[in-house]
Amino acid sequence: MSDRSHAYDPLTYRPLTFHDAVARFRDGTDTPRAYLERCLETVEAREPVVRAFAARNDEAARAAADASTARYRAGQPLSSIDGMPIGIKDLLETRDMPTQMGCEAYRGNFPRRDNAAVWALRQAGAVVLGKLVTAELGGNHPGPTTNPFDPSRTPGGSSSGSAAAVGACMMPAAIGSQVGGSIIRPSGYCANVALKPSQGGINRGERQATSMSTHGIHAGCIEDMWTAAIEIVKRAGGDRGFPGLRGPDTAPAALRPTRLMVLETEGWAKLDDASRAAFTTLTERLASAGITLLRRGDDPLIESLERAIADARAVASSITAWENRWAIRNLVDEHPDGVSARAKAGLARSEAMTHRDYQALLLRRAQAQAAHAATAGIADAAITLACPGPATPWAGDVPGQPLAPWPTGDSVFNTGTSMLFAPCVSMPLMSVGGLPVGAQVVGLPGQDAHVTALARWTIENVEPVIG
Amino acid sequence: MSDRSHAYDPLTYRPLTFHDAVARFRDGTDTPRAYLERCLETVEAREPVVRAFAARNDEAARAAADASTARYRAGQPLSSIDGMPIGIKDLLETRDMPTQMGCEAYRGNFPRRDNAAVWALRQAGAVVLGKLVTAELGGNHPGPTTNPFDPSRTPGGSSSGSAAAVGACMMPAAIGSQVGGSIIRPSGYCANVALKPSQGGINRGERQATSMSTHGIHAGCIEDMWTAAIEIVKRAGGDRGFPGLRGPDTAPAALRPTRLMVLETEGWAKLDDASRAAFTTLTERLASAGITLLRRGDDPLIESLERAIADARAVASSITAWENRWAIRNLVDEHPDGVSARAKAGLARSEAMTHRDYQALLLRRAQAQAAHAATAGIADAAITLACPGPATPWAGDVPGQPLAPWPTGDSVFNTGTSMLFAPCVSMPLMSVGGLPVGAQVVGLPGQDAHVTALARWTIENVEPVIG
Repeated sequence: MSDRSHAYDPLTYRPLTFHDAVARFRDGTDTPRAYLERCLETVEAREPVVRAFAARNDEAARAAADASTARYRAGQPLSSIDGMPIGIKDLLETRDMPTQMGCEAYRGNFPRRDNAAVWALRQAGAVVLGKLVTAELGGNHPGPTTNPFDPSRTPGGSSSGSAAAVGACMMPAAIGSQVGGSIIRPSGYCANVALKPSQGGINRGERQATSMSTHGIHAGCIEDMWTAAIEIVKRAGGDRGFPGLRGPDTAPAALRPTRLMVLETEGWAKLDDASRAAFTTLTERLASAGITLLRRGDDPLIESLERAIADARAVASSITAWENRWAIRNLVDEHPDGVSARAKAGLARSEAMTHRDYQALLLRRAQAQAAHAATAGIADAAITLACPGPATPWAGDVPGQPLAPWPTGDSVFNTGTSMLFAPCVSMPLMSVGGLPVGAQVVGLPGQDAHVTALARWTIENVEPVIG
Repeated sequence: MSDRSHAYDPLTYRPLTFHDAVARFRDGTDTPRAYLERCLETVEAREPVVRAFAARNDEAARAAADASTARYRAGQPLSSIDGMPIGIKDLLETRDMPTQMGCEAYRGNFPRRDNAAVWALRQAGAVVLGKLVTAELGGNHPGPTTNPFDPSRTPGGSSSGSAAAVGACMMPAAIGSQVGGSIIRPSGYCANVALKPSQGGINRGERQATSMSTHGIHAGCIEDMWTAAIEIVKRAGGDRGFPGLRGPDTAPAALRPTRLMVLETEGWAKLDDASRAAFTTLTERLASAGITLLRRGDDPLIESLERAIADARAVASSITAWENRWAIRNLVDEHPDGVSARAKAGLARSEAMTHRDYQALLLRRAQAQAAHAATAGIADAAITLACPGPATPWAGDVPGQPLAPWPTGDSVFNTGTSMLFAPCVSMPLMSVGGLPVGAQVVGLPGQDAHVTALARWTIENVEPVIG
């Protein structure tokens, strides 16, 4: 039976925000240390059920918050996120906590290094609060985290702990990462806003990264989402060979869309009726606000884009499987019992692929990107769901039964936009049956700030749908 | 005083080759094990002075050679490189030998994993003979390896051991890697042929790679160079997101160039007179063979390309420094005494850079690539030197004196082509003062097989220059 004590009502749910505390840090009526202690109180209250953390270092967090407090006292904060408590997905290395990647084979792994993004956060004065649960190796074998709005359900994944910790108001922001749908889907399930930047937007540092992997930000509001991202990028840049996220030092001002493409993606046909109705209502509210909505039937180029991403989940997951096969093979060879049956099944599929298969998939991806580029000018951006309805129940695999295919939820609304290398911002604008269901704004690569501005307007001006 | 007992004469020097032994493996008059033992005899004779190895595992190599011998006996070799002894640059992980990267901080580092390229070589039946010395972390702080033609001189770097081991005929092929000039320059100093493929050509696997890093092959002949490369790529593909090296299963047939651009690059102005004269003689021989040579004065697009790469060394080395800064910072923080003063000086330079500096450098690189693309059709490919004259003397830094700037030789003929993501094949076609000086054929990205065919013709048809 579900525990509905934290059921989601978008009209009353108050996310934790940080940007609006800074003025009080400056005038001395609040401090980063006190802010941190409030976060830790929420952690104490919620963590026993939510289980978002893979590791904590409260002592180091308190020391960092005290240093930040001293900087504000001296009138010299390092950045607009100085003092911001932030959690780190446990795929990223941190010098003061282990990095175990949700994988038994990495139990006890403790490289004394900071990922480039973590390094940048510390340089900006942010308070690293802990490591957050990832599905195993960033795949889809779940960790222990539960949905903060219903513990019988998945928080989504692989950025499970990042989405849940922000959704439970334990912290104002967290670092996640996405290859298929690992930021945007859990954000949609957990009422976060989130940025999955254009491919290469935030420096992945030492991460064993695939060609679609990106770091991104989960947050309670657009302001914190943007400043966390841009303060990292100002210091550590984007991925090697990429210019990195571009945009202003503060969150882009809200921008009212004129025209939006409504993308079905592979997900629409698989959506439950209630979520379909909720999203339809949301688009009606956008239309009522005077925004022109364009669909596949309205323009042959939108139709071409829909067709190009119609089987994105298979294309994207096969690309990623090929790219991961050597790392996983090495891990399985060294630790035969240290990797899940789910990951091993994925390895077997990847080892049945040929190099020519992979080349053909890259061509498919390039063709989809060409179809996306061809839509430039048709609309300001695209909108679609962030996740296929509310988070699905998850009680673990059943011994003797086949492995559940999507224990952290289906990436069917996410792999298309991942394959397009597109910037995506998720918006907590719907509830279905007392659970969050996100929508997302999707732009062309490089349009991160523009997409953020459009999402900001939408969040600030469109009444959430209760379905 | 120099030891000239191994002075280089291109007319009499006989590289070790493998492809021509396979027929004897098949008919039983030779075996991979016997071939390996001959390599090990050369290793015993030359290694005390050349010092190419960072680690050996003769037992594992002999077992692999025996397994290969059995496969030939059964008429079932795994590939055209089954039984080929091959060395691995010590930046790449190998499950049966340590990976110490020429860096004190990595002493004893022994991950029990195979790099994707190493995995592919084993799948193809190749005999992994040992780990070969790299300059520290693939940079330019030298290891102990000496030039096989004069032990008072550098073998070049960072693929020092790979170039030297092949030049000393210890093995028919070795894996190297290049970011600035780490394959082509040492190949030129050590009379190898070598392939630095188009960017992304060979899967770098777990390597902490920069945006210009590539794996490549050092070999005694074009045939072995090509088959080693293509047999890896058939099994492990290229880098994530790249189609990988494309071409036939056997070495491309020799192809006579019709027109070649002669590129000065940044190096020509810095070249010694004897090497300049040798290269001029080489171009005269190409002209005598009926090949049209085009220079910067002959075409404004060639002039544009020359200008775009005129300060490539500064552009490329700064791009790489920025991309490496977090990894090196972590290493220095964890092992303050485990990293050379040379690497620390590079770190200081990189930490003085801003993200905007990096973005501007990426733009410079993209502009150079555009200038290269604009030359399509002007000529079949380009030709230039592989290295700035013969290998330079190296006796170590002098305590109390500033660090020597280019202890493994100057990358001035290499950074331009690295920055262009261009396929390069080096050719041992000159000697200057009894030392090898290479030339290289350079193509547009993706033209690896074409460039190999042109280089093959040139090696087979143009008399080497003795200067």
